[in-house]
Parts: sequence; C-alpha cells; structure tokens
Amino acid sequence: MSDIKKAVLAYSGGLDTSVILKWLQDTYQCEVVTFTADLGQGEELEPARQKALKFGIKPENIFIDDLREEFVRDFVFPMFRANTVYEGEYLLGTSIARPLIAKRLIDIVNQTGAQAISHGATGKGNDQVRFELGAYALKPGIRIIAPWREWDLLSREKLLAYAEKHGIPIEMKHRQGGSPYSMDANLLHISYEGRHLEDPSAEAEESMWRWTVSPEKAPDAAEYLDLEFRNGDIVALNGTAMSPAQILTKLNELGGKHGIGRLDLVENRYVGMKSRGCYETPGGTIMLKAHRAIESITLDREVAHLKDDLMPRYASMIYNGYWWSPERKALQVLIDHTQTCVNGWVRVKLYKGNVIVVGRDSKTDSLFDPTIATFEDDKGAYDQKDAGGFIKLNALRMRIAANLKNRK
Amino acid sequence: MSDIKKAVLAYSGGLDTSVILKWLQDTYQCEVVTFTADLGQGEELEPARQKALKFGIKPENIFIDDLREEFVRDFVFPMFRANTVYEGEYLLGTSIARPLIAKRLIDIVNQTGAQAISHGATGKGNDQVRFELGAYALKPGIRIIAPWREWDLLSREKLLAYAEKHGIPIEMKHRQGGSPYSMDANLLHISYEGRHLEDPSAEAEESMWRWTVSPEKAPDAAEYLDLEFRNGDIVALNGTAMSPAQILTKLNELGGKHGIGRLDLVENRYVGMKSRGCYETPGGTIMLKAHRAIESITLDREVAHLKDDLMPRYASMIYNGYWWSPERKALQVLIDHTQTCVNGWVRVKLYKGNVIVVGRDSKTDSLFDPTIATFEDDKGAYDQKDAGGFIKLNALRMRIAANLKNRK
Amino acid sequence: MSDIKKAVLAYSGGLDTSVILKWLQDTYQCEVVTFTADLGQGEELEPARQKALKFGIKPENIFIDDLREEFVRDFVFPMFRANTVYEGEYLLGTSIARPLIAKRLIDIVNQTGAQAISHGATGKGNDQVRFELGAYALKPGIRIIAPWREWDLLSREKLLAYAEKHGIPIEMKHRQGGSPYSMDANLLHISYEGRHLEDPSAEAEESMWRWTVSPEKAPDAAEYLDLEFRNGDIVALNGTAMSPAQILTKLNELGGKHGIGRLDLVENRYVGMKSRGCYETPGGTIMLKAHRAIESITLDREVAHLKDDLMPRYASMIYNGYWWSPERKALQVLIDHTQTCVNGWVRVKLYKGNVIVVGRDSKTDSLFDPTIATFEDDKGAYDQKDAGGFIKLNALRMRIAANLKNRK
Amino acid sequence: MSDIKKAVLAYSGGLDTSVILKWLQDTYQCEVVTFTADLGQGEELEPARQKALKFGIKPENIFIDDLREEFVRDFVFPMFRANTVYEGEYLLGTSIARPLIAKRLIDIVNQTGAQAISHGATGKGNDQVRFELGAYALKPGIRIIAPWREWDLLSREKLLAYAEKHGIPIEMKHRQGGSPYSMDANLLHISYEGRHLEDPSAEAEESMWRWTVSPEKAPDAAEYLDLEFRNGDIVALNGTAMSPAQILTKLNELGGKHGIGRLDLVENRYVGMKSRGCYETPGGTIMLKAHRAIESITLDREVAHLKDDLMPRYASMIYNGYWWSPERKALQVLIDHTQTCVNGWVRVKLYKGNVIVVGRDSKTDSLFDPTIATFEDDKGAYDQKDAGGFIKLNALRMRIAANLKNRK
Repeated sequence: MSDIKKAVLAYSGGLDTSVILKWLQDTYQCEVVTFTADLGQGEELEPARQKALKFGIKPENIFIDDLREEFVRDFVFPMFRANTVYEGEYLLGTSIARPLIAKRLIDIVNQTGAQAISHGATGKGNDQVRFELGAYALKPGIRIIAPWREWDLLSREKLLAYAEKHGIPIEMKHRQGGSPYSMDANLLHISYEGRHLEDPSAEAEESMWRWTVSPEKAPDAAEYLDLEFRNGDIVALNGTAMSPAQILTKLNELGGKHGIGRLDLVENRYVGMKSRGCYETPGGTIMLKAHRAIESITLDREVAHLKDDLMPRYASMIYNGYWWSPERKALQVLIDHTQTCVNGWVRVKLYKGNVIVVGRDSKTDSLFDPTIATFEDDKGAYDQKDAGGFIKLNALRMRIAANLKNRK
Repeated sequence: MSDIKKAVLAYSGGLDTSVILKWLQDTYQCEVVTFTADLGQGEELEPARQKALKFGIKPENIFIDDLREEFVRDFVFPMFRANTVYEGEYLLGTSIARPLIAKRLIDIVNQTGAQAISHGATGKGNDQVRFELGAYALKPGIRIIAPWREWDLLSREKLLAYAEKHGIPIEMKHRQGGSPYSMDANLLHISYEGRHLEDPSAEAEESMWRWTVSPEKAPDAAEYLDLEFRNGDIVALNGTAMSPAQILTKLNELGGKHGIGRLDLVENRYVGMKSRGCYETPGGTIMLKAHRAIESITLDREVAHLKDDLMPRYASMIYNGYWWSPERKALQVLIDHTQTCVNGWVRVKLYKGNVIVVGRDSKTDSLFDPTIATFEDDKGAYDQKDAGGFIKLNALRMRIAANLKNRK
Repeated sequence: MSDIKKAVLAYSGGLDTSVILKWLQDTYQCEVVTFTADLGQGEELEPARQKALKFGIKPENIFIDDLREEFVRDFVFPMFRANTVYEGEYLLGTSIARPLIAKRLIDIVNQTGAQAISHGATGKGNDQVRFELGAYALKPGIRIIAPWREWDLLSREKLLAYAEKHGIPIEMKHRQGGSPYSMDANLLHISYEGRHLEDPSAEAEESMWRWTVSPEKAPDAAEYLDLEFRNGDIVALNGTAMSPAQILTKLNELGGKHGIGRLDLVENRYVGMKSRGCYETPGGTIMLKAHRAIESITLDREVAHLKDDLMPRYASMIYNGYWWSPERKALQVLIDHTQTCVNGWVRVKLYKGNVIVVGRDSKTDSLFDPTIATFEDDKGAYDQKDAGGFIKLNALRMRIAANLKNRK
Repeated sequence: MSDIKKAVLAYSGGLDTSVILKWLQDTYQCEVVTFTADLGQGEELEPARQKALKFGIKPENIFIDDLREEFVRDFVFPMFRANTVYEGEYLLGTSIARPLIAKRLIDIVNQTGAQAISHGATGKGNDQVRFELGAYALKPGIRIIAPWREWDLLSREKLLAYAEKHGIPIEMKHRQGGSPYSMDANLLHISYEGRHLEDPSAEAEESMWRWTVSPEKAPDAAEYLDLEFRNGDIVALNGTAMSPAQILTKLNELGGKHGIGRLDLVENRYVGMKSRGCYETPGGTIMLKAHRAIESITLDREVAHLKDDLMPRYASMIYNGYWWSPERKALQVLIDHTQTCVNGWVRVKLYKGNVIVVGRDSKTDSLFDPTIATFEDDKGAYDQKDAGGFIKLNALRMRIAANLKNRK
C-alpha cells in the first residue's frame, strides 16, 4: 500500500479525469480530493460535483472555485504588461492559467492534509511541466501523480475499456472517436491541438473554431472601442469601469464578434518537440495591440527597448512553466515598475479580424511633445545643429576604423 | 570660397531638393552632381534629369539609377531573415533604404572626385543620421552638407520665397499649403509623417492612404497564395520563380488589393523625440508572417529563440542608421548562417487586411515530427516517463529554495 | 551681456577650475557659486574655500560638502550589487561619482536660483556627458557652460598665460610641465589618463601609482578578512559593523597595503574613441570578489544568470552617464529585489595583489545543500535516474534534427 | 539478453571505469570497446591498454588517442575567442573537454559498429549531460549506458567489494579511503570536487593543489611574457611560433610556476544543485587576460559589447553540454567573424598569482588613435563642440520626461 493517503486531483469532470479519479482510488487506495476551477472556460461546474459524488468523494473533499477575477488580475494582466508573446505569435493562453491551478492545488493540499496532487496532462506536453514546477516551487515535498506517465492506458481504446469496466459514463462523442482536437479553454483563450491538426501543411477546418466568427462572417460595419489604462492595465471600456474579468469577458465578446484573434501556428514545446496549435484569443489580441499603443506615448524609449529585449525571455519563462520561479518574479518587479506611468486611453477599430489603433493619448503621462516633433517652425525648442555633433560622435569609431582600413 | 569643389546631392527632383541644388551652387560655389535612384517609389525619374539640366548640371554629372533589385536582394531580404520589427510594430521601410542611398552617394563621390555629399533630410529626423553614418563609415573623410541644419529657410514661406526668387518651378500643391504629410516611398513601403498627423489621438484621414485599399473596400473573396522559400528568402510565388524585386512588387500588388499592411503608430526616434507615423507595407507584412511560418517548422527552437532575443537590437541598429557598422555585419553573419535550413513553402490567405497562415511544409528541412508530437500511440518514439526526471531536475533549485524558506 | 546671472561651478580649487572660475566671471559677467565635494579623494577642501574667496566669491556662494557616506551608500553600493564591470575590467570608479556631483550641482542651482552650471571636463571625455546628462535629467531647462568646448585656451601654454595674466596662483608642478597624468580620485578609486600613458604598448611607470604598493612591495604575510553582507551590501568587517564609507575606507587601506586593485587597460569611450587608463580600486576589487562569492551560495541560478546577462548593459548605462535615466532605475529595481536574500559572510585572503576567496556561508539564506551535492550516499535526497529523462528531453530537438540530417 | 552487442566505454584505466568495464561485460553480456584519450591530463595511457587486455578486451577494440592538438585548436581556442567565463569565475576547463570525448566515442561507434556508449560520470553531475547531449546530437539513435544511474554500487564500499570479488586491482589509496577529492584534468585545467571540499565555508587544504605553487611559494622575481595573436588565437610566445597544444602547455608551465590560476568557488550545476569546486587553470588565466587586452585595441566598441552581452549565454551553452547544438554553432559563427581583426601582441607580467597586462599593440589592426584621444592639441582631428550636440540629443528624451514631471 502506498504512503499516499490523500491526493488532490485537478478534476474537470470529463472522461479523462474521471478515469484518473477512479484509477487513483484503485491504484493508490487513497482518498481523492477533487478540485474544479472556473477560469472562464464556459462550462458548467456543477456536473463535476455530481460526478465526484458518484465516485464516493466526500462532499468536504470537493472543491469548486470561481477563479476568474484572480486569474485575470494576478496572472493575465501582469503578463500583458510585458507585451508577452511566445515565438512571435502565441499569446500564452494555456500557459498562464497553469500556475494558478498549481497554486490552488497546493492550497487545497495544505488545507486537507493531502500528500499528493494529480493531473490529467500527458507526458508529452507542456502542461505537466507547468503544473509540477509550480507545485514543487510552492511545496517542495509534494508528491505528484501523473497517470499518463504511469499507467498503461495509453491508447483511446484502453481508456474507454477501463471506463466501461468501471462504470464511468462515456458520452456519445467519445464512442464516436472522440473530439477531433484536444482543447483547453479559459477566459484568455481556447486552444486546439492534435489529431486533425497534426498535419501542419493542411488548413484547419472552419468548423473547429468556437469563440470567433470567421472574418468573412463578421459584421460589415466596423466598431470603435475606447480602452482606458491605469498602471498598464485596462480599467474601463468605452468609459465604463469594470473589473479585470469583466473587461476580458467583454473584450472576448467584441473580438469574437469581429473575427479577431484566430491563430494557427507551429510552436516549440519545452519538452523538445514541435507541435501545431490553433488558438482563439479575441480579447487578448485587442489588449496586446492597445497596450503597445498606450506604451508608445507614455514609455521612455530605452525603457521600452529594455522591455522588448527581455520580453522573449519572460515569455519563455511562462511558456515553460516558471511562473513561480524567482527569475520570473524578478522580471515582474522590473516590468511592474515601468507601468506606473502607463496611463491614458487608446481607441481601436475592430473590423473583420483587424484590430486597428486609430488614436491614443494620456492627459497625465504623454511623452509625445508636438512642439519638438513638428516639421513646422518649433520656435527654438530643438536646435537642428545639435544633430551634426550627435552624428559626428556616433560615427567616430566607424571613421577611425575606415581610416585604418584605407591605410592598410 | 569653400574648399568643396564638387558635391553629390541626393536629388529627387522635387521642390525641396531643387532649392537645395540651387542653394549649394550659390552658397558653396561648387559643381553639383545629382543622384536620383529608382527604389520603387513609383515616380518617373526622367523629369529629375530635365530639371537638373535646367540648373546647369552637366550631363555627365547626372546619375539616375535603377536600384530596385539591389535594394530588395541586399537590404530588404537580409533584414526580413531576422523577422525584423522596430518597437513591436514598424517594418523599417524607410530605414532600410537609406544605407543603399548612402552607398551609392559614396560610389559617385569616388567616381567623380567630389569632396562632399548633400541631402534633403531635416535636422530632427532619423534619415540624416542614416545617410551620414553610412557615408562616414564608407568614406571617413567625406564632407557632409545638410542644408536644413545650416540655412535659414526653416519655414515653408521662406523656402517658397527662395524658390520664387531663383526661378525654381513651384507646383500648385506647394502654393496651396503643400502636402498634408511628409511622405517617403520605396518598394518596401510608403510612409506619412507630420502636419495632419501631429495629433496622435486623432485618426488618420482615409484619403491619406495611397498603396492599399481600406479593408472595407477590399474584395469580399479571400485569395490564397503560396510562397516558396530558399535560405530564408522568397524565391517563388504560386510556383512561379521571380527575382527579389519582382516578388516584392507582386506582393505589394496583392497586399494592396486586400487592404493589408496599414499601420498607425508613435515611434521613438534616435534623436530623442517621439513621432507619429503612418505606414503602408503590404508586401512586407505578408513576407514577415510567412517567414515566421517557414521558420516555425525548419528552425531549431534555441536558434529561433536566440534570433528572437537579438532581433530588437538588430532592428534598432537598422532604425538608428548602423547598417554599415561592424556590429550589424556581425549579427548578419549569425542570422544568415541560421537561414541555410529555412527552405520550404507557406500558404497564406489574404482577406480584408488579414494575412492568415493556413499551411507550411518543407520537404527537405522540416523538424516537425508527427510520430513524436502525436497524442495517439507513438510506438515508443518518445518515452513519457522521461518527463518525470526532466521536471524533477528542472524543479530542483526551486525545491531547495522552498525547503530553505520553510525552515526559516 | 548674457542672460546667465548666476552659475554654479564644480570647483576643485586646482588650476584648471580656477581659470574657469575667472573665465566665467569675465566671459559671462555672472555671479559664480562654487561647489566643492569631499568624495574621499583625499585632499583638503579648505584651500578651495580660500581660493574662492580670493576670486571674490561671496561666502554664501561657497558650498563645500562631505558626500562620502551618500556616495558609497547610494551610488557605489547599489552598483556593486550588480557585480558591475565595464568591458570586462573597469570598476567604474569615475563614472559612479559623476551623477552625485550632477545632483548636488542641481540642488545648489535650485537653492541659489542660478541659471547655469559649469564644469572642467573636456570635450573629448566621458565626464562631460555624465555631468550634463545628469543635469538635464534632473533639471531639463538648465543651462550648461562647458568651457573646454567654448574657449580658445586649448593648449597648456595658453591656459598658463591666462592664469598668469589674471593673477591666478600657479604651482611649481604646473610650470614644470604639469602632471604627467590626468588624475581623478574618490573613495572608490584613483584614475590616471593621458600624456605619459598615451602609448598603450608601453608599461606605466611604477612611480605613477599612488594608492597601492606594488605587489612586490606588499607584505610577505597574507591577511585574512571576514566580510559580512546584508541585502547585498557589506555591513561589517571582521565582525565590526561600520558605515558604508567607513567600510570602503578600510577596504582601501587593506587593499592598498596588499597591492590589490591596480588596472591598466584600453577602454572605449562613449564619445567614440579608445583611450588608455590606469586605475587603482583596492577596496572595490575586494568588494566585487566577495560579493560574487556571497551570491554564489545565496542566489538562485537563473536569477544569477539573469543578472549576469544584464550586467554589461547596466555597466554601460553608468559608464555612459545614464545613472539618472529611467532605464537605469528600472534595472536597479530588479537588482535590488534580488539582493534581499544576499546575506551571510565571506572570508578572503589578501596577498600581494591577490584577493582569494577561501570561505563563504549564510546562516539564513544558503542554497548550498550538501546532502544533495555530495558524492557520497545521499540517502535518497536526489534520484540519479531522474537525470536520464532530463537529458533525453533536452536532447530531443537535436536528435530530431540529426535524424532529419541522416535521412537527407 | 540485451540487444546491445557492443559498447564503447570512455575508459581511464582507473578503478571506477575498470569496475564499469567488468560490470558492462557481466550485465549487458556485450563486447566492450575501450577508448582512452590523452587530453593533456598528464597520465600515462599505456597502463590503460594493459588493464583492458587483462579484461579480455580485443586489441583491435582498444583505442588510445592523443587528442591534445585537436582539443586546444578546435575547442579551447574557439571558446577563448569569446572571453568565456561561467558565472563570472569559472573557465570551463572540464566542460570544454567533454564534447571532444563525445565526438570520439561516436566516431569509434561508427567505426566498430557498436550500439552503445558508456561512461563513468555520476547521475548528479554535469558531465553525464555533456557526454550524452553530444552523443545524441551526433548520433540520435545511440544507446547510452550510464552505470551510476543504473547499478546499485552507489557507495564506495560496495564498489570496492565488487572490484575485490571480480579481481579488479585496487590501489592502496582506494583502500585507505580514496582520494579526498574527485579530480579531472586536461590541458586546460585540473579540477577538485567533493568530499573534503563539501563545506564551502572551509578553506581548501594547501596540499590539494597540484599544478600551481601557491603565490607565497612562487618566485620573488616577476617574469615578462609576450603573446602574439592571429585571428584571436595565440600563435607565438616570446617570438617563438608554436602549435596550439604547445602554447597551452608552455603557458601552464609558466602560470604554474608563478602561482597563477587557482580558483575556489561555488557554482550552479545544470542538474539544479550548487556545488563547490576548486580549479587550477594557469595557462587559461593568462590567455583570458591577454585576449581581452588584444581585443581592447582591435575590436570595435559595439562589437565588443555585443560579444560581452552574449558571452554568459555562450558560456552556459558550453557548461550545460550544448557544444554540438545549432545555437552554439550559430554564436560561434558570429564570434569567429569578429576575430579576423584580432591581431597583434600583448605583454603580460607574471608575479605571484598576478597576470598583469603592461602593454599591447597591433601593427595592422589597432583602432587606438592617439591623435584623437590626446589631451594635448589634436590639430583639429576631433571637434570638441560636437560633444555639445551629442549630449543634447542624448538627453532629449530625459528632458521631455522631466518637463512633463515638472508640469504635473
């Protein structure tokens, strides 16, 4: 018998984690605590409770939490302050949710006195790394049970057979071959991977996309939207103050309506392979564009460039699962420090897949000074003759080198 | 009298450089050599020759060159190999043309025995820096005459008065207040700055845009396009091999038709001020997206990340005028080295402002291995158990730190 | 007559700044305020007061400040937290003092209502940049008078003639050809540049060095020294708590005695030329070595590497005069954040030019865990089998690439 | 029975790899091929042959190679072109030898038709990673046997018992408790780890050091040494041209004589733990200092800074075992490109642990221009007034920001 008496399982209520639940009970002979989170994935959570009860989980061992506000406020928004994009394209919708789940799992471990956590991520993906690095960082002695790396149910057929044998309800779609994609959703995005997408030369089927209409089906009339920023975060839309989760919900709605935020790419996983993924990030796509625009008038050039130089590294930290690492926290301190002056508003135009910045201003923090930039007479604000010396000294090292070359 | 006997002027044939031509003759009492380049800006060059002749320029001192192929092959393409973007948005259309003009100016200096070059860039902008850093790097003893930093014709009125007085033809548009924007065009883009754009909170007028239709006016039917890459450069469109300039010309046509590549932003100039610019880069926008896509399946992860980390620095070098510097050349050597495996094709869908990657493949260099990435049974290509050790060791330092914290 | 009524001069009391004082009075017809700082350069400051009075400076316009504690606490220590070295060698002794002088100059401007500041740095060096960037950042409208860029006293002879003519006392050494070096000193270092050092192939004369004995002349017996760190700063030597300036003074004494901290190098100035400099930084050399040692057991690996990656950039900011810039402040926030766990002690051995770390420990923050690192039986603290998976997944992308290559 | 018929073992002839040899024969029932390399570790190799024969290894399966020239020319020198130092201190002496051993192991695999390689590195260290990443990169299908991760001989007692039982000769030192340190040597360095060094607060015993005298015991007279560089590599000492291995051998001799190159540090291993190591790198310490000196007069500032910024990343690649990775090769291309102008000579003074640069020059590539750097009259080579404009424009963004702040 195992020394694990109690394990907390990240439980969605779906087939896979239901099989895991049963398998944990059988294999580890342990009490299972289920944790189901509302991160804005758009699914009912109560059925998960009912299912857990059917597996004999004690009511006090069923945790169902609405984490939407915490998710956007403490994870999504901080990440967007850095204009974070992985490999030039991916907005890290899955990556950013994992550390919050890891944190809650450990909270519940501490609360229930469990010895282990368990999750349904496979041994080939990034999510196992994100869950487990987070868990280890927060509770170094935690035991982790990753069934996909342990059991022998590695094919769909074996999984279904196991479910059948143990009376785990199987929905029709599973019997018919299962979803053509592996999906993950939260308030920031929905992702699709695997199966029908495994050939990166083939276009994804239109029927796959769930959150956005196609640009072709989007309204023929553009829509303007004003976003107000405070300390680098959006705090109001069209003049209405909202909470972080409300803002992202609303932006998803608007972006989805206008066909914004679809992405089809091949990315490099931390575990060493390339993988094709499709993503819908309607609200995030708008946020990124708008955040860059507000920074463009409020951030000092060198600070902005420093952030740009560090961004890919910060993105990799999040992608690879190092949210709870000291290096991510150190970068966050720098990033957050730079955002104190990122205040003002941005106007974007949404139209058939496009997010077009059409205006930006900051009453308090604009560094844009038209009296200097003007091509017209600036009344002495800038002495053009200064540029001569500026260029001469910047050229000096290259002139010395060219002189040497000429002498040779 | 000046020790400058002969000066080579970057001459567009327009009002400003015509005034400069005359002013050079009068002020420096020197022979003027005019240089007019076809970089794909879409203007007739012969009128420039006629105007130069009228100013008494000797025919052998009039240089008119078609530089389009050299421009795309040796400047635009190398830059795109790095996925170069300045400040997250700007595709560097103006910046990348300046070093070629600097090079040709110095070539003509060497050919004609001139002592100086001159140009029409103002003392507030980046272009003076790009011209002059290039010229100094290529010919360290060159004299540079930058009239806008020297003369007193700093208002439009004074300039017109000078033109009038000296019989320089003034087109009607100049009498009527001049263009509402300062524009610059070449095969990569057309830019708009100044005057009507000086308020960054106000949307640019639709009438400003010249190369692209608005997304609203673009065709209702999407168009698919296949791009073939060799060593990181596009070599064929829809199966037809073309020269670099032909490719960019065709991509501009397609992008322009589908409303692709408009940009409205505030950027940080090297001389220290923020400035608002609008750009149309239809072909470049398609190239960037497609280049990232072909790299996504052919480039090693760490090489791709190294390139991403260095890209903002490389972009700043080009933006700031350091094309001819040793540091840009050193980075280029690295970048070009990475592109030997960037071969294959990318399919994009063009639709109302969107460039959507829908497929990519490489017969020779794809690192995408579906037998490993698959969620299905991989027949042992990848041992999921390896992930446990991978995570454990990557977590080790964080666990040690957390243990320490717990002890405290 | 100038619109400058009052100017604050960074006044050392030496010949050059005395000539400047007089020249300012004559040329600008302005009231001069003198500012003389004790930064630990080891010179009496009262003579500067007497000289100033002789030039008719009003007593209330003579500022003489002991800035030693502020210098070490707010400038030297923060810089050493980053292990800052410019171009692999230079400890930035001159660079780090300039921003403090700039700050005090502006403080005095604000206090006295002056319109301008003035300094004795030449137009070829870095110091003019450091003074002036600091001043502009702190008071953007400040007027700056840099006599070496304005006057015609560019040779030593002209300067002496001017002094003679205006009754400025000239010491014998100046009549005899002046110092063979240009020197600058403060609590962190003393520097030598120019004249006898202008040939970088020739060894510096032994007689030049002032703060340290040569390693050959240093004691034959080594000396051990314990340094205690708190939040990355040294707070005690051999168990005795001291103030920042006391610590650096003591370290200079010990280092100087043991021939530690001499440096002879060629560096790249911000204004574009290479220059040869010799430096003595006895205390700083000990501090750097010890700080790296305490970080080696208290800092997380990735945090340490992040700091190492950013250090050259941070060093350039300080070298180039950007102490008061927003980008330096942003980096400082990150650096300081990492130092909260840098607590403990380091033991070094000082011997004839060598600083040898022989021990380091931290009761509260050591991440060194002998139960894991041991080659002996670790009783399961580390499972060696984990390394297999770690290596396999880290190798995966290279194996896929090699497989592809083999197939080709 | 295993599917491994033949395995190539990195065989030193010592106790540990002799036990491994026997264990491989017994456990895998396979033919063993031994590979012993002379990397300059200073040990006789013929005894290894005799021992191998005694284990029944066929003569044609015994490989003994002198790799010293290849090691220095293709591994050590390229690394020193980057001024490579890991974590501010460590010269990577062990790390840089591993990829060469990996390469030879795979060469021999290809030559003998073996299926596997084996080595004696433990599961806690970096060396297993370096061997195996190299092997996988060069031959993706290779099987790797790492006995320390597989067997149960994890304590010294068990190992000795196994040796005794199988008639493997045990030297007296092993019976007496074994070496107080784990050591590794090659032409670049000798390292000490483990056991007596496991307490980082305690000074290493003087008796440990083998290659260098202590500074105290070094000669009382300094010695001057001239080093000539071509393309960044040393090609002659005191005017005598030598091969790479000859140069490093001679530098080790000189450095060792003068007490140069001892290091005692705590480093961060790739597998996640901190570890204390002591190193002697006499020749390398001289090379690093001299290489920086020759670069100081021949390398452009921005190129030098680019190299400095990338160096820690390059060092980590080598430390972590990624020599054969595409990212290391890409950086190497950049580094090597920068070295074409690194020609000239450097004079150093060696004295009791100190390497003091006292002169450097390059007839062909010096960018040091005394006519510009001079404090004396430069006859117009540099216009000091240019500095005014240079500073003004560099200050502009900070002045605009300060103006904004004042208005607030």
